[in-house]
Amino acid sequence: MPVSSILHSAGFVRANIPRFLAELGEFLRFRSISSQSRFAVEMESCAAWFAGHLRRIGMDNASVVTTGGHPLVFAEWRNAPGRPTVLIYGHYDVQPPDPPGEWHTPPFEPVVRGDYLFARGATDDKGQLFTHVKAMETWLATTGTLPVNVICLFEGEEETGSKNLHRFLQENRHRLKADMAIVSDTLMPTPDRPTVTYALRGVLGLELEVAGQRNDLHSGHFGGMVHNPLQALCEIIAKLHDPDMQIAVPDFYNRVKNLSIEERHYMKETGPGDAELLENAGAQRGWGEAGYTLYERTTVRPALIVTGISGGYQGEGGKGVIPASARAKIEIRLALQQDPREIERLFRLHISRLTPPTITTNIRTLSRVRPVTIDPAHPLFRAVENAYLRGFGRKPAYWRSGGSIPVVAALQEIGGMPVALMGFGLASACIHAPNESLYLPNFLRGIATSFHLLDELGRVHILHGGNRP
Amino acid sequence: MPVSSILHSAGFVRANIPRFLAELGEFLRFRSISSQSRFAVEMESCAAWFAGHLRRIGMDNASVVTTGGHPLVFAEWRNAPGRPTVLIYGHYDVQPPDPPGEWHTPPFEPVVRGDYLFARGATDDKGQLFTHVKAMETWLATTGTLPVNVICLFEGEEETGSKNLHRFLQENRHRLKADMAIVSDTLMPTPDRPTVTYALRGVLGLELEVAGQRNDLHSGHFGGMVHNPLQALCEIIAKLHDPDMQIAVPDFYNRVKNLSIEERHYMKETGPGDAELLENAGAQRGWGEAGYTLYERTTVRPALIVTGISGGYQGEGGKGVIPASARAKIEIRLALQQDPREIERLFRLHISRLTPPTITTNIRTLSRVRPVTIDPAHPLFRAVENAYLRGFGRKPAYWRSGGSIPVVAALQEIGGMPVALMGFGLASACIHAPNESLYLPNFLRGIATSFHLLDELGRVHILHGGNRP
Repeated sequence: MPVSSILHSAGFVRANIPRFLAELGEFLRFRSISSQSRFAVEMESCAAWFAGHLRRIGMDNASVVTTGGHPLVFAEWRNAPGRPTVLIYGHYDVQPPDPPGEWHTPPFEPVVRGDYLFARGATDDKGQLFTHVKAMETWLATTGTLPVNVICLFEGEEETGSKNLHRFLQENRHRLKADMAIVSDTLMPTPDRPTVTYALRGVLGLELEVAGQRNDLHSGHFGGMVHNPLQALCEIIAKLHDPDMQIAVPDFYNRVKNLSIEERHYMKETGPGDAELLENAGAQRGWGEAGYTLYERTTVRPALIVTGISGGYQGEGGKGVIPASARAKIEIRLALQQDPREIERLFRLHISRLTPPTITTNIRTLSRVRPVTIDPAHPLFRAVENAYLRGFGRKPAYWRSGGSIPVVAALQEIGGMPVALMGFGLASACIHAPNESLYLPNFLRGIATSFHLLDELGRVHILHGGNRP
Repeated sequence: MPVSSILHSAGFVRANIPRFLAELGEFLRFRSISSQSRFAVEMESCAAWFAGHLRRIGMDNASVVTTGGHPLVFAEWRNAPGRPTVLIYGHYDVQPPDPPGEWHTPPFEPVVRGDYLFARGATDDKGQLFTHVKAMETWLATTGTLPVNVICLFEGEEETGSKNLHRFLQENRHRLKADMAIVSDTLMPTPDRPTVTYALRGVLGLELEVAGQRNDLHSGHFGGMVHNPLQALCEIIAKLHDPDMQIAVPDFYNRVKNLSIEERHYMKETGPGDAELLENAGAQRGWGEAGYTLYERTTVRPALIVTGISGGYQGEGGKGVIPASARAKIEIRLALQQDPREIERLFRLHISRLTPPTITTNIRTLSRVRPVTIDPAHPLFRAVENAYLRGFGRKPAYWRSGGSIPVVAALQEIGGMPVALMGFGLASACIHAPNESLYLPNFLRGIATSFHLLDELGRVHILHGGNRP
């Protein structure tokens, strides 16, 4: 691409920043909370708005695709014959804003303060996926073309385990065939340290219910003669970790392999240290398996996390009640070699062994996501590195993430394509938490990086095609 | 009282049943939930309505008395010089209707179906205290007089530990001096087995908060490196009972004395058996301290009950979060010799010992109520027995209750008066639970029993005064 075109494109972005932010603001106003069925209509409105937006910037076949759950948004541009095809994935669904009382501004009324935009989904993932949308718009508006073929796949069920995405990928595997996939749904530690993620943990999402007697009971009249389901739930949860802070499910660690000395060394050299992670967590001290750094505990080691408990009276003051049942939401973050279905079987077996005869337990599975790794030695990652060099001024570091993105394993399995996890969000963005934010300088660098990546990938193809030296 | 007057009175009750129920319905519509501050205005409206009602039936000085918290309703009738004075206590505040989804009809829209009236407060305690109000109304309407002097004290903070009642009792101890107090805020096992309660457990209401890192965290990115406050809370709660199901707080049982063989025998002879209590609880099997019957476990033995836990995500589906904090509400039901303040000190000490360095704990005290016993050998209890004989057709059994009524200890301490705990509610009334009901035949028998009790107490006095043989 000639320098004059790049300057022209940079000028286009600069001139249109206010409009880009206004459009992102429109996008963020939709309460697209996929886990709560009462927002189903809002999910559809959001998908329709987004498909319309992709149509307006010049994408072909922009459409809302119905699934068994929340719809997908699809678009493509295939007018670069002989050039590579890039699949851009993102998700327009967001986490619930709970606890709502802890937001400084309403979660679905985006506000810019200083260098930050605050809203649920600002970083995860509407803001991040918008970098690619605006990069494509810039190409199309300034040159009338894209340097590669592009397939856009934006789903509405990432936060609930992408239940219906797999089927869509399976049924459309030929149409979705691409040379590389780009996913911007991860984080970087600080604005000047771009990172590409090369490993993700899997996740098994569960709900454990403990049921006791038929109805809620008066705690005075019956306290001491029935096994309180809330107490029983706590007793079970307390047995899910050993005193040494390992997960106490028998055979749980059977498939978890230790890293090579080389990889541990690489992680220590390139990744975050304990002090940095504790600061990010806002925690005074660490916790967990002895013999591992905090970075290792959160990426190469599995974890069992109670993400919610409810039961009995939760209002102001007291209420004298023994609840009839109690529930816990539990996530098991899986290390690389662990299979969600096998771990689920082990967990269910363990809970059945821990269930005393005074109560009954029931487990519902909410999500199953496989862990993945990506080999950054793949030649297309050189294009990714060059794009960062042009967009951020330096090449990215390769990091592991403890998070889980369901689509990655599916794309690997179905298309065999390399997946570039290009996270433009900051570790301090409070994703999944109150006061989620988007760091706007990174939003602009993300647009630039995506813009250059399309350029770089176009060139890689030409090199491969042998038309140039 | 001549037989003709009694028949006249019975006719008055029969003729006015529909009006009595309509008035009780009005009373039950007030959402007088004392534990939740947003209902403070509704509490005041309820108190004002109730004072007006007492004025209309002919009581003197019916008034709403402001306190540091929710108001008291006071009334009196002192036109029987030389006759005894009876203090009638009740409470117009109710438990929250949680969980609201489990009510078959709205909790504050009273509905009569068959022999039952359904509403929050139907039995605890608006329905029960109304038996005495309607008995007094019947006396006043049919004879223009009451056979004894009466003081009515109806509070609005029973469900939150009667925090402001003690001060009122202290400051008005001379004005409130009575020969006997009547409290109808307990239960009877079946409609044909009237019971008078002669012992209540105390209660210590607590809220335990566990705080971890500064903010909620993404469970993928941080899971495995911080001590999850929800997990830590479960670990602490699991340590509050020994494997033998005794409370694990050191020195907790120091003051708890074993009953005499005679009293255990009396309880076994007169009280409910294990099978009956399990059926009332809707439970398959019992739980708790070995060596004690279920009736003993719930009345003469203490109990520690987790009445609510909240923390993390509680909505539909999942949310990948490690909450910054978690809370449990805990009640300790106290055996006769236990002092709430001493047990509170032991509990706080124990929690501080159980708190690991990875989290902090904080305890709030919600209520402190002392346990009580009442001696049914007091001569005035013969009047109570006669009243039951006339109202229910049989004399009452004397039972222990595992519940707690703050006013009882206070009345004993301040006035030295015997307290008759005349429960007209059924054990199956679902008090403190969804679908609370009032068994209407007992409501009418309660009115009759109260009516006859006033008559009996008037006679007892005359005997004491020596005017009759």
